[in-house]
Amino acid sequence: MSTDNNLEVKLMKKSLGAKTLVYPTPVLVVCTYDNEGNPNAMTAAWGGICCSSPPCVAISLRKATYSYSNLMLKKAFTINIPSENYVKEADYFGIASRNKEDKFAKTGLSAVKSDIVDAPYIREFPVNLECKVIQIIELGLHTQFIGEVMDAKIDETIQEKVDQPIIEQIKPLIFAPDSRNYYAVGNQIAQAFSIGNEIKGKMF
Amino acid sequence: MSTDNNLEVKLMKKSLGAKTLVYPTPVLVVCTYDNEGNPNAMTAAWGGICCSSPPCVAISLRKATYSYSNLMLKKAFTINIPSENYVKEADYFGIASRNKEDKFAKTGLSAVKSDIVDAPYIREFPVNLECKVIQIIELGLHTQFIGEVMDAKIDETIQEKVDQPIIEQIKPLIFAPDSRNYYAVGNQIAQAFSIGNEIKGKMF
Repeated sequence: MSTDNNLEVKLMKKSLGAKTLVYPTPVLVVCTYDNEGNPNAMTAAWGGICCSSPPCVAISLRKATYSYSNLMLKKAFTINIPSENYVKEADYFGIASRNKEDKFAKTGLSAVKSDIVDAPYIREFPVNLECKVIQIIELGLHTQFIGEVMDAKIDETIQEKVDQPIIEQIKPLIFAPDSRNYYAVGNQIAQAFSIGNEIKGKMF
Repeated sequence: MSTDNNLEVKLMKKSLGAKTLVYPTPVLVVCTYDNEGNPNAMTAAWGGICCSSPPCVAISLRKATYSYSNLMLKKAFTINIPSENYVKEADYFGIASRNKEDKFAKTGLSAVKSDIVDAPYIREFPVNLECKVIQIIELGLHTQFIGEVMDAKIDETIQEKVDQPIIEQIKPLIFAPDSRNYYAVGNQIAQAFSIGNEIKGKMF
């Protein structure tokens, strides 16, 4: 009886109003060139994969950012995924403004010219996606840029391993909106497209 | 000397071609009604937050899915975030098709009519976002639906706590593309909009 009551309480909901509560969000460092060819980096958590073919990613930026102007000008950007070791730099890229300081000089990280698109990537970060802007969607405070991935690069040292998937070698950051903390990726829980078969096969 | 060489090797890159390597991606269960009012659920990892004001989320679905037709018809959906406990159900929602089976009957989860939009949410999942479709963007294999969040609900038992942020109470899943595994959220690494100040304040 008390078990049922506890379950009932557990399943009660409270409304928090119109709020973007999505967990987890990624930590994506977006790099661009300005009209003088100076590299810039900013951190965005509003973004992700949006199409498999053509391979596309989406990032949302505010119009007030230096990167927004660069993106409108160059129609190119890179997404750079920091490992845990670079949490300080990733956070700095999110709070500093290119209008006031040279973010690459300040962090000491290396901006490398991309092979295909007109944007720099961060050499020290383990994953770099070269993207060409194919759509720009005005949403309100944020503008969403859809980038077609022209090339994905990873550190030479990262190899496909059965006992250590790529994500465990990359050690990407997770951002928690609301409480605004960075987290590490935790333990592997299950194999996707597999564990659900236990329900699919269930007779009832 | 050998240290420098090691660093050099570490920073060499290899190209994997045009590929959407984004880590982490979320595990979002999208719920809709069909034209007869039957609830459906499917799992999407291609999505995330795309605007703060109005609060918007994006999800990308293939045209072949049952949910795609429902979304085109109802222009409404919910995003439901499963906790680790529901990894089996979340995976099942991603591999089964509504054309062949009633996913709610099979999992035993509860489809509750939303308060504001014409879509059901999953009572047992700790976070539910009621969304109204405001833009539909054709990208290729996937179509991106932008939903304005009309209301966010969380379990009554989840409270703001200094020592345990909401994400640690929700225990959301992380999906790793490529190796296709589910992960838990790991340890807290740093406070966002804070740790980067150590670089911002640096004199050089």
